[in-house]
Amino acid sequence: MGTDGYDMKALTFNGADLLLNEIPLPDRRPGDVLIQVHYAGICNTDHEILRGYMPGFTGVPGHEFVGWIREADNDRLVGSRATAEINIGCESDSCAWCISGMQRHCPNRAVLGIQGRDGVMAQYVAVPERNVVPIPDSIPDNQAIFIEPLAAACEILEQISVGKEQTVLVLGDGKLAQLIARVLGTHAGRDQVVVCGKHSAKKALFPRDLVTVVDLETCTSDSTRFDIVVEATGSPSGLDMAVTKVRPRGCVVLKSTCAASAGFNPAPLVVNEITCVGSRCGRFAEALDFLVSTGLDLSPLISAIRPLDQGREAFALSAQPDVMKVVLDCSG
Amino acid sequence: MGTDGYDMKALTFNGADLLLNEIPLPDRRPGDVLIQVHYAGICNTDHEILRGYMPGFTGVPGHEFVGWIREADNDRLVGSRATAEINIGCESDSCAWCISGMQRHCPNRAVLGIQGRDGVMAQYVAVPERNVVPIPDSIPDNQAIFIEPLAAACEILEQISVGKEQTVLVLGDGKLAQLIARVLGTHAGRDQVVVCGKHSAKKALFPRDLVTVVDLETCTSDSTRFDIVVEATGSPSGLDMAVTKVRPRGCVVLKSTCAASAGFNPAPLVVNEITCVGSRCGRFAEALDFLVSTGLDLSPLISAIRPLDQGREAFALSAQPDVMKVVLDCSG
Repeated sequence: MGTDGYDMKALTFNGADLLLNEIPLPDRRPGDVLIQVHYAGICNTDHEILRGYMPGFTGVPGHEFVGWIREADNDRLVGSRATAEINIGCESDSCAWCISGMQRHCPNRAVLGIQGRDGVMAQYVAVPERNVVPIPDSIPDNQAIFIEPLAAACEILEQISVGKEQTVLVLGDGKLAQLIARVLGTHAGRDQVVVCGKHSAKKALFPRDLVTVVDLETCTSDSTRFDIVVEATGSPSGLDMAVTKVRPRGCVVLKSTCAASAGFNPAPLVVNEITCVGSRCGRFAEALDFLVSTGLDLSPLISAIRPLDQGREAFALSAQPDVMKVVLDCSG
Repeated sequence: MGTDGYDMKALTFNGADLLLNEIPLPDRRPGDVLIQVHYAGICNTDHEILRGYMPGFTGVPGHEFVGWIREADNDRLVGSRATAEINIGCESDSCAWCISGMQRHCPNRAVLGIQGRDGVMAQYVAVPERNVVPIPDSIPDNQAIFIEPLAAACEILEQISVGKEQTVLVLGDGKLAQLIARVLGTHAGRDQVVVCGKHSAKKALFPRDLVTVVDLETCTSDSTRFDIVVEATGSPSGLDMAVTKVRPRGCVVLKSTCAASAGFNPAPLVVNEITCVGSRCGRFAEALDFLVSTGLDLSPLISAIRPLDQGREAFALSAQPDVMKVVLDCSG
């Protein structure tokens, strides 16, 4: 039983298997709030953790969520809907990253459900109050669940500029590629932004008013090169293709954390003086602004909502081709 | 015999072997000048071509050189000392690269001794007059021979800025790393620029007034991370090391065209949001300015000067550890 005398249901990863367990309620450390989780999204990173991508992580996985604040030092927060930034910096006076608000690069950071801190695939999660992002009433939970990956998509525009004359190719049609296409398409429009996917069901989800959609064969056989190529396939071959589709002196944005293909050859990067920009998490505020200002409905990207009790089955479903976001309902 | 009734000595690569041959003098096409080659430098790229790095290249290799203009439409050029930019653009009215002076990225370019055009390891070479770079009297031939690789070193400062507070690590102690260290050390100083090599004889050549020199073991075991890491090892493991030595959101400059190590994993690039900048050729004018303004003596980087007749032996020598620039004297 937990410190308050209660246990909660949670998915836990023991380094080998994902299990449904009863575990103590999380400790609410000084400055933390306790959030009752409503929805928790399953992300490719969660699959990678279960495959050993983050060696050493054990505990409750999950970092995409929305819920209700149930306990907080600040009484006014209690009862409000919220999500939370997932990177928890060391907040030391000598940490330049934390001082500058870049906790997401603090070398001693913990990351919810990824590194050194239990995540959100549980009935409750404790997070520092400074990480809390309140959700406005206009954004329902089936939109709010996308804020974390949407922030990762918005991060691209924080790292590089996409000018009015520049052409962009997004490689991939999975969950992150869908969000990137919406963010870049909203920014630059369908005359500038082309997306290339290979799964018809996923490609059908791209908003045709924001982006131009091409299939893999057309894209491969066409000799057009783009100013910017965003690699979001999640596949080892994605980087190879990105390098062939970017113009000399162009920019490749790397979003996939998977390994490069075995024969990856960086020589074309040198010969064509390509810039590759690794891109990960972004600020939640930008993502929330995007949701509020565009009014885009992201719920078509949710393939299924399953109760936390069916977490293992939900992970299996999420790994199927043509399945997009699978959400765990942790409120049952 | 050549069109003028003369043959010349040249090294030629037939796709398998490097041979010493008598071949016709090069055709001087409209707008070309004919240069009698004095010195031709052996570069790692030449070795890579002989190993099949540029499949399909056959003919006279070599692209680093200095010589005397012997024939030109413009009489005033005849007799002057010169080298030449190695990229020969298509110069089509519809080529945005050529129009903007970026022939080095023209998709239809030829490259002296590398792609579609005979190079300089011969008694004579023909190049377009627009590519000619005259050498001032103050720069002797044993300095001028470095202009092409020095331009590649200067290119880094055209692509990225190195601010007063930024730290730079140069990986490698070979020919290109030596020039990069001198260019960046001159720009930023030894408090900002660290170079890491593993060959004592090569490391001894770094100018200690411009850069701080560390050995590989110290660099590997130290946890310091740099704002900018320049990968110029020419080794597949260089990129892996660069990624471990750059700070989050830092920049890796890629100079080696060799393949990445088999297990190269781009995930740290994404997680730490690293920018990788491929960097190749630069403008010769910057390199010439550098030589003239710094007065740096680069001749200690020349390990040997061998007659063209001993070209094959010179290549073998050049491939030995601890051997730096080997120069062919083509004037004999």
